[in-house]
Amino acid sequence: MSAQAPHNTLLIPGPIEFDDAVLQSMSHYAESHVAPGFVKVFGETLTLVRKLFQSTNPTAQPFIISGSGTLGWDLVSANLIERGENALVLNTGYFGDSFGQCLETYGANVTHLKAPIGDRSSLEEVEQALKEKAYKLITLTHVDTSTGVLSDVKGVAQLVRRVSPDTLVVVDGVCSVGSEEIAFDEWDLDAVLTASQKAIGCPPGLSIVMTSGRAIQVAQSRKTPPGAYYASIANWLPIMKNYENNKPSYFATPPTQLVHALHTTLQQITADVPGRFAIHTEVSDKVKAAAAELGLKQLAARPECQAHGMTALYLPEGLSPPDVLPGLLKRGVIFAAGLHKEIASKYIRFGHMGVSVTDPKRGDVEKALAALKEALAEAKQAKGL
Amino acid sequence: MSAQAPHNTLLIPGPIEFDDAVLQSMSHYAESHVAPGFVKVFGETLTLVRKLFQSTNPTAQPFIISGSGTLGWDLVSANLIERGENALVLNTGYFGDSFGQCLETYGANVTHLKAPIGDRSSLEEVEQALKEKAYKLITLTHVDTSTGVLSDVKGVAQLVRRVSPDTLVVVDGVCSVGSEEIAFDEWDLDAVLTASQKAIGCPPGLSIVMTSGRAIQVAQSRKTPPGAYYASIANWLPIMKNYENNKPSYFATPPTQLVHALHTTLQQITADVPGRFAIHTEVSDKVKAAAAELGLKQLAARPECQAHGMTALYLPEGLSPPDVLPGLLKRGVIFAAGLHKEIASKYIRFGHMGVSVTDPKRGDVEKALAALKEALAEAKQAKGL
Repeated sequence: MSAQAPHNTLLIPGPIEFDDAVLQSMSHYAESHVAPGFVKVFGETLTLVRKLFQSTNPTAQPFIISGSGTLGWDLVSANLIERGENALVLNTGYFGDSFGQCLETYGANVTHLKAPIGDRSSLEEVEQALKEKAYKLITLTHVDTSTGVLSDVKGVAQLVRRVSPDTLVVVDGVCSVGSEEIAFDEWDLDAVLTASQKAIGCPPGLSIVMTSGRAIQVAQSRKTPPGAYYASIANWLPIMKNYENNKPSYFATPPTQLVHALHTTLQQITADVPGRFAIHTEVSDKVKAAAAELGLKQLAARPECQAHGMTALYLPEGLSPPDVLPGLLKRGVIFAAGLHKEIASKYIRFGHMGVSVTDPKRGDVEKALAALKEALAEAKQAKGL
Repeated sequence: MSAQAPHNTLLIPGPIEFDDAVLQSMSHYAESHVAPGFVKVFGETLTLVRKLFQSTNPTAQPFIISGSGTLGWDLVSANLIERGENALVLNTGYFGDSFGQCLETYGANVTHLKAPIGDRSSLEEVEQALKEKAYKLITLTHVDTSTGVLSDVKGVAQLVRRVSPDTLVVVDGVCSVGSEEIAFDEWDLDAVLTASQKAIGCPPGLSIVMTSGRAIQVAQSRKTPPGAYYASIANWLPIMKNYENNKPSYFATPPTQLVHALHTTLQQITADVPGRFAIHTEVSDKVKAAAAELGLKQLAARPECQAHGMTALYLPEGLSPPDVLPGLLKRGVIFAAGLHKEIASKYIRFGHMGVSVTDPKRGDVEKALAALKEALAEAKQAKGL
């Protein structure tokens, strides 16, 4: 059984439940960030990030930086686009709005292609938008944590290469990396940014960004200096290269304990990357079928727009998250409330990623589905519905 | 005895050895960043930061953000100064150079007042510099980790208030907070930025910044928007205020495990803040006396310029760090090599902060001094010196 203190099961769209070995890595004894032992672990972790992204192209470059997932937006916005250049944001919710604000902070001209809540723009709409202006980069949220909408990363990337080949394809993979398939080289992506605490199964505190050779070249051939210091690719690039070549290097102190935890979880994940996506799909299908049986509708209506690591569910008319979440908690399960500003009071979010999915012995998903059924019934009864 | 796996004693100027309870907090089970339990812990941690800085002024504002200490430079440079405004950097080593680069990234005009290696500028020199231009802010490195030079924060702050009262006083306290006295309100400081992994005794991964009401007002009355998104005071301010008022709030996911560890160590430290400074001074005096007895000279020649949490020591003529560090390691002790570019091969650095100092039962400092004596003798003999 788990070595962790008894606690309610965390099934929000991140942070998620941890594997015992990952959590034990967090209490690694004090180490110098430039000592051989740590240099080796950090270097291996960078190489494992390549594996996670199914990338073998040596010009691609992973970054692991102390910070939250949000920092990845700054890394993109301060390095891959310059003041006055155009960015197209495929907006599927809260996180598209925010990424757009970040891009604007660094001077980009941002155009949002907004999809209706629970949906994504069609490839035709994206193609039309791409033809209206020359875009330095296009961003898409692979899975919008606020809505559970899945974007068609592969399709959009193919489209961009066909109609606007120099436009950088930037994917916000905070809620997708580790649970949704990403073939970084094969899909010809330029940047995927993510965080440690969702499907990667590590505690929060790491910004993880994978970049293509094309993206690095764009960063290195800027006409103006990078817009940030801590989030500067120029400052971090030699550090990441050195560590992966087993050489200590210093720009800012890496979070040694978190890197150990990431190392542990990536070793587990990369043992079978396709298997990981398959099991997330299988469990997601089960969750979505069970929710349908309970009469609950998803925010993401069309199956091809539904994420595999989380499900956003409309509550029955007359119920809001505070009517249902306490009933779940009473049964040892934690879901999240709605996040999309316009409809936050109408839905709940169920995260099914990482060990809760890959370790069936835990029984987390079954427990959650049973708790959801009971909590809903209880809430309806209390409201006389 | 310690619950940690056996390991060499880490006595570099950060990261440092951890208290067992602090390290245990790192493996806290998964928690939602907006759940009541975590909100309470984060809020209390912010209040403990005030206590650490001996601050009771309600207009002062602490920030705890996922990132390394370096991120604090961006927080200052992107919010407290605008493009084209002047910054005066009191430069006592490597970290003054880098803070200057960060300020320039965000468009500041930076003037360095450079002290000779191992020394600091006099108050007269600072006064003269302040009279030459109108400076939006002045920065000083409280303890420069590359040299062990201690700055006169209180004296400089008094001087600034007298000759240039609107200039913000910004202190890089990465290597000082927790081991050197700082009376934030009494000294009338505007920003002190630090990191978790030095004298605060927490693993690396947190940027901690204390700001005055005056600094917040400057950030809020900018003529131009903040220069960064992740490092934007405007984005973080409501979050920090909400957590401290026990209200969940979201801008980016906080590193929950690191916040627990910071909470644990700050509870320990703030039980007796003056006592903490006193013991660091006492042990530092002992280290410096022992080094003098071994015939070793400090980079910081004048006693008033010597830090109390670390000591940078010139090696005897003919020896360089690779001659001595392995001998220390053989005896279970890790020191750091030199870092100041011009003289890196001539000196070593000994960090004496946190539990290694406050828990005499560990015997870390005695062990280090004995190892240093032996390793030096061995190295001299090997070189025929």
